[in-house]
Amino acid sequence: MTFSWSEELEALGWRALVVVATGSHDPYLAPFVGSGRVGASLFLATDDGEARLGYLSPMEREEAALSGLPLLSPEVLDVGRHAAASDSQGELWARLLSTALESAGIEPPARIGITGLFPAGAVREICERLEVAGWTVRAGDSAVERLRKRKRDDETAEITRVAGSVAQAFRTVARRLVGARPERNGAAGQSLFDVEGMLTVGRLRREIAGVFAAEGLEQPLRNIVAPGGDGAVPHNVGNDASPIRTGETLIVDLFPKGRLFADLTRTFCLDPVPADVVRASSDVAAALVLAESSARPGVAAWTLQQQVCRLLGERGWPTPISHPGTTRGYVHGLGHGVGYDLHELPIFAEEAAESDGVLEDGDILTLEPGLYDPEAGWAVRLEDLYRVTPSGVARLVDLPRELDPRAVLDSG
Amino acid sequence: MTFSWSEELEALGWRALVVVATGSHDPYLAPFVGSGRVGASLFLATDDGEARLGYLSPMEREEAALSGLPLLSPEVLDVGRHAAASDSQGELWARLLSTALESAGIEPPARIGITGLFPAGAVREICERLEVAGWTVRAGDSAVERLRKRKRDDETAEITRVAGSVAQAFRTVARRLVGARPERNGAAGQSLFDVEGMLTVGRLRREIAGVFAAEGLEQPLRNIVAPGGDGAVPHNVGNDASPIRTGETLIVDLFPKGRLFADLTRTFCLDPVPADVVRASSDVAAALVLAESSARPGVAAWTLQQQVCRLLGERGWPTPISHPGTTRGYVHGLGHGVGYDLHELPIFAEEAAESDGVLEDGDILTLEPGLYDPEAGWAVRLEDLYRVTPSGVARLVDLPRELDPRAVLDSG
Repeated sequence: MTFSWSEELEALGWRALVVVATGSHDPYLAPFVGSGRVGASLFLATDDGEARLGYLSPMEREEAALSGLPLLSPEVLDVGRHAAASDSQGELWARLLSTALESAGIEPPARIGITGLFPAGAVREICERLEVAGWTVRAGDSAVERLRKRKRDDETAEITRVAGSVAQAFRTVARRLVGARPERNGAAGQSLFDVEGMLTVGRLRREIAGVFAAEGLEQPLRNIVAPGGDGAVPHNVGNDASPIRTGETLIVDLFPKGRLFADLTRTFCLDPVPADVVRASSDVAAALVLAESSARPGVAAWTLQQQVCRLLGERGWPTPISHPGTTRGYVHGLGHGVGYDLHELPIFAEEAAESDGVLEDGDILTLEPGLYDPEAGWAVRLEDLYRVTPSGVARLVDLPRELDPRAVLDSG
Repeated sequence: MTFSWSEELEALGWRALVVVATGSHDPYLAPFVGSGRVGASLFLATDDGEARLGYLSPMEREEAALSGLPLLSPEVLDVGRHAAASDSQGELWARLLSTALESAGIEPPARIGITGLFPAGAVREICERLEVAGWTVRAGDSAVERLRKRKRDDETAEITRVAGSVAQAFRTVARRLVGARPERNGAAGQSLFDVEGMLTVGRLRREIAGVFAAEGLEQPLRNIVAPGGDGAVPHNVGNDASPIRTGETLIVDLFPKGRLFADLTRTFCLDPVPADVVRASSDVAAALVLAESSARPGVAAWTLQQQVCRLLGERGWPTPISHPGTTRGYVHGLGHGVGYDLHELPIFAEEAAESDGVLEDGDILTLEPGLYDPEAGWAVRLEDLYRVTPSGVARLVDLPRELDPRAVLDSG
């Protein structure tokens, strides 16, 4: 997915796009800096087609150079003089941006876009100062979010690598489940024990973290390992102290990050599996098959959500379309784009059905139907990760969808 | 460190402080939400002394409740109606903030502060819309940064716990260094080998990540494991492929995060240690002893930097005061506060010497003198973590400072 800054900026009617960032992990900066790792920094793309990276500390010269971009050094940005003259971070950054823009030959009253994850108070002051100085400042978030939507080959490769580690983590969890045996009667089935003692959410989390650590991945947004009733509220992350029990569902939703995120979910349940859970598992799997067979370029993600709601509704489950606000049945959106942010374009909301929610060749997204019963205390969610191809979608990793952990274990 | 929102806000002349956040990992939101883990959310503190947490998805109700705060639910915030009526994230959030403020009885033209790590374009639009609606919006970053400066007991305990894991990671690195033996001649000494093959930066990184994974810690800003010339540019993070060699310095600077960060650095060097490195190590240790013996409430962090520069200057090294912009000798600031952000108040800059750079009882900070010679390809940095007490500072963890890894190993 190549693009030209001059065309992008011309289409937006801007002379420049500036990104203010506390570091190269910022999802609005990361797409442009490759493997370079810098702290507080600014990115400047101008309508002559150039892009530059400005860094604030001379100690970061080598890391900044790894971006492959022309650099705006602390000397060019005049960091020392501006820092001494500024009463606040907002003032400092307004000065740095003016210097960067003027060094690129752009002066007020030019129109510029601004983005980057940055402290809101500083942003408020940066914009006020730039506007007082005659600049016209516009919101630049969407411009970068749209550039991030269709993935480059290196981005797809990295998400695929991270997804492979998630599959390995699922196998590690499955191995622990299969290797443990039920011993004592718990409230909702028997708790599992192995040579290390009782199997808990915390123990599984440590094993999962070990798999990711060995691959150099982080979990900046942690994970969800949620048994029984905890899993039935989809964003409940699960308590480390909770035991793993037979007859209880276990939601394992992992979303680690390398340079980019991956995101997959499996649900396990050891015998005796409740009849409702068996039925829910089959219905969720059917919903996933339906969605993945319908997904292709030009289709709105919202259309997939409608199809899944129709299928699950026909099978007797409340859905967000039939029962807005329901907490039983299918209770959430169908998926989301994945990349430098865990949740990015395409978005699955109805409002975006004709804009940022239309699938395009090169998008990477998850499909994650689920069924929940907070009162009965169970949940089933399956989430796979796909690349949109010219004719449909391709799964980034193949992994069995059964409740029985032996299926995932045997797939390794 | 207790405080009252009514007093804080009265002092600022604001009716309310609002935090807009993409999740509870935001350092401007985290101090207020305890162990609750929510996604996109807003925090509202008002001049009647109340603080509330607003969350956008009903799926997050249980996690939001863990904050212990009164909640603004998606129904109260009218998320569904606002989302349908909004053309952009900025518009949506301006609407949500208005609803939240009005639900607390605050209406335009009240004066409010805004903060939170949030996309700059959305912030720009939020502020513009709120001001058009009659609100007066002020930068709220510093207000929260100052509240975060002196640590509460639970915060000190968490940083201490994370620092303990860093000490364990240093011991693990030391064990690998001590257990390996030099085998082949490299350019700058002999490379180290053990039963798993050549010892590299990447292997040490995997071991370090394993230690942190077992404790549930993440490294969102990664780490520095930088041998020889890489370490001599302080923010060069080091290449995974680089071998570890005898006679070469190895900078290990680790800054993992639990609920809060910790940050410590050790430098190792195996025989034959170059004479300049021996001298630098002794001078850096002396600088650290001087700084920690001078630090106490009421002292400006900048004063400590001046003292260290004087000592190192007397011993013949260029410093940022004697040689501004130097890349040889002592080339950076002396330290930084540590907390929800890796770098926070107190700051060690001259400009802050009479404001946010004055040490107070309860601050947590690092002191990290270092000496560098990029041309000769060596670096020595020592960084310890301290809590400011009524009479001085107390180290959060005690760990030997020798170049010889056996000292750290024996301390375990």
